[in-house]
Amino acid sequence: MAEFPVAIKNLITAFERLPGIGPKSATRLVFYLLNTPQSFIDNLSNSLLRLKKDIKICSVCFSVGDTEVCSICSDNKRNKNVVCVVERAIDVMVIENMGGFKGVYHVLGGAVNPLDHIGPDDLKIVELLQRIRKMVNEVDKKDMEIILATNPTMEGEATALYIKRRIEEIDKEVNISRIGSGLPIGADLEYADQATLSRALDGRRSI
Amino acid sequence: MAEFPVAIKNLITAFERLPGIGPKSATRLVFYLLNTPQSFIDNLSNSLLRLKKDIKICSVCFSVGDTEVCSICSDNKRNKNVVCVVERAIDVMVIENMGGFKGVYHVLGGAVNPLDHIGPDDLKIVELLQRIRKMVNEVDKKDMEIILATNPTMEGEATALYIKRRIEEIDKEVNISRIGSGLPIGADLEYADQATLSRALDGRRSI
Repeated sequence: MAEFPVAIKNLITAFERLPGIGPKSATRLVFYLLNTPQSFIDNLSNSLLRLKKDIKICSVCFSVGDTEVCSICSDNKRNKNVVCVVERAIDVMVIENMGGFKGVYHVLGGAVNPLDHIGPDDLKIVELLQRIRKMVNEVDKKDMEIILATNPTMEGEATALYIKRRIEEIDKEVNISRIGSGLPIGADLEYADQATLSRALDGRRSI
Repeated sequence: MAEFPVAIKNLITAFERLPGIGPKSATRLVFYLLNTPQSFIDNLSNSLLRLKKDIKICSVCFSVGDTEVCSICSDNKRNKNVVCVVERAIDVMVIENMGGFKGVYHVLGGAVNPLDHIGPDDLKIVELLQRIRKMVNEVDKKDMEIILATNPTMEGEATALYIKRRIEEIDKEVNISRIGSGLPIGADLEYADQATLSRALDGRRSI
């Protein structure tokens, strides 16, 4: 059986390591690139190299941006007393694309996950508590809200619970909320899993 | 609505131009890369840059390889009198991975496609006819076979027909064959399209 040339093999191997790209897609991508102009490949390669070099991690919320303090944290129209805590920078983008949220964010950098050896100290929880401590001293607690928007997974729930307890150690009167979970819009009760259904019932609201 | 940082936007745009990658997959890939070590990104970027530089186009069959004459064309165990004509280099890899084919290849670089302004002169047809002319002079015509394995599409069929006529101009006695088409293995008659079904009937074999 003939082997791919080394340059093709190397690129297929590199593509295969990306999420959602298997051996067949990787091969297809490489042979597609073989037929594109070199300028297109140069541009892709360059954008890759510049990715981490050009990006700044916001010193306030740890999201990604073009500046030292990101565009959301430096926007005077945003309500700095409402902090939405998320796992990853992409979650910020998702909520922003939805529109409507006028508060600010705090990116933890993941969720507590003992199997992957990720403990609370590996996340930006100390930094979040510092932000909250400062807010408690400076603003009216009634205006404050910490929205825990970690994923509704085992790890995300555990992280939310851990953060809730740590905030309560600072001040029991701080408003802490958790994003709603239940059936997604457009879903069918018949096909819902038990955990989601049970959560949807727990989270029922009077109408 | 907040915008992605420039470096992220650029890379998403570059990924989106690849086949099978939409805006959501592109965004997912970029945020995945943000969490990978720089060495991984460097390697991917490097493999991309080296792709076209390290690859040689075989001077005999126009497939891709590591050397001036590819490993298949320089393999003495292959039957040089049986030439499988394909559209793209990836088709060579597909047939090689199947195993069993002991002839050599000729990569056209595409198929005749008037809508995309690709005529016979844009493909390696002249080079194929030169190879065949040389073979006709040197070997017994009974041992020769030209297998036209262009895709069973409008363009592939037209290309095969055009090449068949051009070969007949050289010598009417050269064996020319077309890869079989019909229902793929595992398919269901009920769901076959009419063109495929009609081709399957035309291509029926006595058993």
